[in-house]
Amino acid sequence: MEHPVLSIMYKVYAIAFSLDTGLVVEGSNGEYVYLTPEERVELVSRVREFLPQDSNKLILAGSGCESTRDTIAMSQKMAAAGADAVMIVTPSYYKGGMKDTALHAHFTAVADNCPVPVILYSVPAFTVIDLSLDVIADLAHHPNIIGIKESGGDIAKIGSIVQKTQNVDFQVIAGSASFLLATLQIGGVGGVCALANVLGESVCELQRLVMENDMSAAVELQKKLIAPNAAVTKTFGIPGLKQVMDWMGMYGGPLRSPLQPLTQQETEKLRQVFVNAGYL
Amino acid sequence: MEHPVLSIMYKVYAIAFSLDTGLVVEGSNGEYVYLTPEERVELVSRVREFLPQDSNKLILAGSGCESTRDTIAMSQKMAAAGADAVMIVTPSYYKGGMKDTALHAHFTAVADNCPVPVILYSVPAFTVIDLSLDVIADLAHHPNIIGIKESGGDIAKIGSIVQKTQNVDFQVIAGSASFLLATLQIGGVGGVCALANVLGESVCELQRLVMENDMSAAVELQKKLIAPNAAVTKTFGIPGLKQVMDWMGMYGGPLRSPLQPLTQQETEKLRQVFVNAGYL
Amino acid sequence: MEHPVLSIMYKVYAIAFSLDTGLVVEGSNGEYVYLTPEERVELVSRVREFLPQDSNKLILAGSGCESTRDTIAMSQKMAAAGADAVMIVTPSYYKGGMKDTALHAHFTAVADNCPVPVILYSVPAFTVIDLSLDVIADLAHHPNIIGIKESGGDIAKIGSIVQKTQNVDFQVIAGSASFLLATLQIGGVGGVCALANVLGESVCELQRLVMENDMSAAVELQKKLIAPNAAVTKTFGIPGLKQVMDWMGMYGGPLRSPLQPLTQQETEKLRQVFVNAGYL
Amino acid sequence: MEHPVLSIMYKVYAIAFSLDTGLVVEGSNGEYVYLTPEERVELVSRVREFLPQDSNKLILAGSGCESTRDTIAMSQKMAAAGADAVMIVTPSYYKGGMKDTALHAHFTAVADNCPVPVILYSVPAFTVIDLSLDVIADLAHHPNIIGIKESGGDIAKIGSIVQKTQNVDFQVIAGSASFLLATLQIGGVGGVCALANVLGESVCELQRLVMENDMSAAVELQKKLIAPNAAVTKTFGIPGLKQVMDWMGMYGGPLRSPLQPLTQQETEKLRQVFVNAGYL
Repeated sequence: MEHPVLSIMYKVYAIAFSLDTGLVVEGSNGEYVYLTPEERVELVSRVREFLPQDSNKLILAGSGCESTRDTIAMSQKMAAAGADAVMIVTPSYYKGGMKDTALHAHFTAVADNCPVPVILYSVPAFTVIDLSLDVIADLAHHPNIIGIKESGGDIAKIGSIVQKTQNVDFQVIAGSASFLLATLQIGGVGGVCALANVLGESVCELQRLVMENDMSAAVELQKKLIAPNAAVTKTFGIPGLKQVMDWMGMYGGPLRSPLQPLTQQETEKLRQVFVNAGYL
Repeated sequence: MEHPVLSIMYKVYAIAFSLDTGLVVEGSNGEYVYLTPEERVELVSRVREFLPQDSNKLILAGSGCESTRDTIAMSQKMAAAGADAVMIVTPSYYKGGMKDTALHAHFTAVADNCPVPVILYSVPAFTVIDLSLDVIADLAHHPNIIGIKESGGDIAKIGSIVQKTQNVDFQVIAGSASFLLATLQIGGVGGVCALANVLGESVCELQRLVMENDMSAAVELQKKLIAPNAAVTKTFGIPGLKQVMDWMGMYGGPLRSPLQPLTQQETEKLRQVFVNAGYL
Repeated sequence: MEHPVLSIMYKVYAIAFSLDTGLVVEGSNGEYVYLTPEERVELVSRVREFLPQDSNKLILAGSGCESTRDTIAMSQKMAAAGADAVMIVTPSYYKGGMKDTALHAHFTAVADNCPVPVILYSVPAFTVIDLSLDVIADLAHHPNIIGIKESGGDIAKIGSIVQKTQNVDFQVIAGSASFLLATLQIGGVGGVCALANVLGESVCELQRLVMENDMSAAVELQKKLIAPNAAVTKTFGIPGLKQVMDWMGMYGGPLRSPLQPLTQQETEKLRQVFVNAGYL
Repeated sequence: MEHPVLSIMYKVYAIAFSLDTGLVVEGSNGEYVYLTPEERVELVSRVREFLPQDSNKLILAGSGCESTRDTIAMSQKMAAAGADAVMIVTPSYYKGGMKDTALHAHFTAVADNCPVPVILYSVPAFTVIDLSLDVIADLAHHPNIIGIKESGGDIAKIGSIVQKTQNVDFQVIAGSASFLLATLQIGGVGGVCALANVLGESVCELQRLVMENDMSAAVELQKKLIAPNAAVTKTFGIPGLKQVMDWMGMYGGPLRSPLQPLTQQETEKLRQVFVNAGYL
């Protein structure tokens, strides 16, 4: 019932990470949990295919599964399909069993068996698992683990990660535009932000301003992005994000059930936020 | 590296539901989230195959996936593979999006498209989603939704479900042996209990005592089961459950990573609980 | 602005514990956190005063404070004012500090210095602290700690407490009418129930039926109480409880701020629940 | 058993707010919930007494109680005892009842009846109540509510508060040193930080660097403060904070029970953090 290409393409989210260095495919906002294993791999191939051959954009693919075995297999397939690196979310179903030792073993086994570099991904809002500072600091020494997408938003934890990993090659990436400025300030290197799907230029501009040390402009822009960011994440989630993509002339497209479209009232509120911020 | 049959079979948990009426395949303790889609279906076939042809035991198969589409497909395949009914866990990744309307739409669509009856499954310890009383009461009117496995353990909620569904054909099943007696008392019809994997006879005996109205014996047995039940669920989880299966002469077998085996100290504590209760 | 006696009296809740044995003054539904230390003591005196001299009703007074020192002082004053026993809620403000050792030390010190027996009180819905089974089992050996009001509603935990304290003199009391039957079944001795403020006779009747082993009548009554109980606890809280007291010809009276009265719509829903159950 | 003055004085925490502008008496780290109402007021008097008469340091006193009535009375007494402003924590015991309307009514009534300015105080780690953006934005228009101490640490929320209150006179204050830099960057005006009790100069220095726009030095200092801050808050709490005060030649003094002193192992870990950071 969906157009064969679009049915895949609408899952592609071009999220800036580290100043417009590439695309993240199948982050949480990419509805990756609603894709079959085959679709997950195909989606990476298609994105690779559509990128110009001379593009230097990197593809970071979300390959996390609940089991270590599946995560390894998925990571290998995604690498073969063109991913330059993979992003591995914490497994989370058996919450009582996801202790430090289990998570450490999981990420180590995946990194040992993955042909491309691994980025950790901690997103307690969805997993209710907050990858601990100790485990992160330890995993940072693994030669094939190069960073973390930290979406918990605790700037103290982010600062602690930066501190504890300063002697190894490890990149700390803000998992949301709402704390991108704060993360960059404290030593993070970039962002993987839902908001970049709809306001990609502004998100990259924010990072550019920080790098050029134009702090007052950076602060103004960060403030301006707060309300739109909240609207397409915490408040209206993926349904909101896709709606704004449609408004912006991109293809947000339909949701996969059980996610439900916004009500008319919610849609109106969402529009107002973007109108107020001058983006619509 | 695992024996080809056993590698599948160790996922089969013969969990009594409604007084020894059948087997539950791929409940949470069946590590279903660690199986590939193909393994999930094959497992149902194998269990069907191994059951004597004249057996009247029912197979209840856990077919829940995150997306509605995948859940429908999995339910249809499991039915074709021999499942007599399916058990559908609440989707849970996008917690903010799993509102009543979304869950109602999900279960309705699955039930509409499933060739065998559907049993709802609410297990907040793993999903952090507690299926609401209103949604349950409403879904109970769907002709293809025949009951709920309620694992939250809130006996007041269980009683409320019984109350609100008393005029329709809807079965309330305790999701743990720890509140099996209380559930049966208040109008539930049976249990799908992790503990039944290791103490199946005792769990069935408990229900038999209640049905024969031998309450003092039932209470004594319920009390006796509390510590063993806690040990193989909340305290030591699946690693504990499998360990006891091995001790009992069944095949618990290895865990799939990231679940980790018990430490020696934990193993000793676990053994003590079963020794104290007279089961080892 | 309030009538001097009633302003105190509306805090008195005649809550049955252990088959109509007495009154609980200043449980959570008694808005005890909104009383000054002086009011808290005076309230106990007034209840004692109003009880007929030949009454054999016991007064159980909630004397818990955040600090051990204040709890001891309050317990001593309440005992002097006529309390036969005190009920001590877990301190809860410094959540990270309320580990097992801290809570064990707190209750021990209070029991050591309290002239009347102590009943533990665990109510995670308000405190977000769930007194652990280990601490309870250990404290049960203290000669001056005679029981627990368990309001968490986890019937498995309640059963475990009964099991672990069976060799000492320790009473397990259901903290809500919703799991009174289940608690009594598993070895508990009574209830301290918000619902008893408005349906005291029915709550006592439920316990009587269980003691007389008339289980089918007990189950029917328990079911009938579920909806009214939910309405005056989880759904509408203290504002709902007081409203129903007013309807029942008792004095619920005004709330202390910041608690707010029900809206008209909420009031109507509440009334409907009690009408449906045949109590209004 | 405690020295009459010290027994009070050890509750005084000289916490910098808004660049060394004054003292906060009875924030959460001041163990205020363990003081009697009389001690709470006396403490403010003593601090006022000990301040040089020509001091321009302000006293900000924590006067929050569970009830509106008690909070008003306490605020008035503290103002009379010398507080220049009061800080009002969200009431939190009846969690279900603390909806937006209730909290709005509470803070409005307190501000209406308080002779000195009011600062809101949201600290979900202790209260499990996160004062909502809508309520904050609305209360910011009250002429006697001048700011908020936001301790939740969600920098996106802090940015949103700044945004939503930019047209009124309202100060946003970081509730912890861990996100002081991030707060100041996004438009906050200062901090009320536990860490200032032991590293007051460094905390003030951090703010000074931001105001002088010496961002690279500010970032280095913020990073340096992260580990010590975590040690005296999340990891070791008040027992840790008091221990370090003792080491620094101040008077941390004994804890009030039920808070328990650190174990020897914890003490050693704590010391190591401060040694590593160069502060011991």
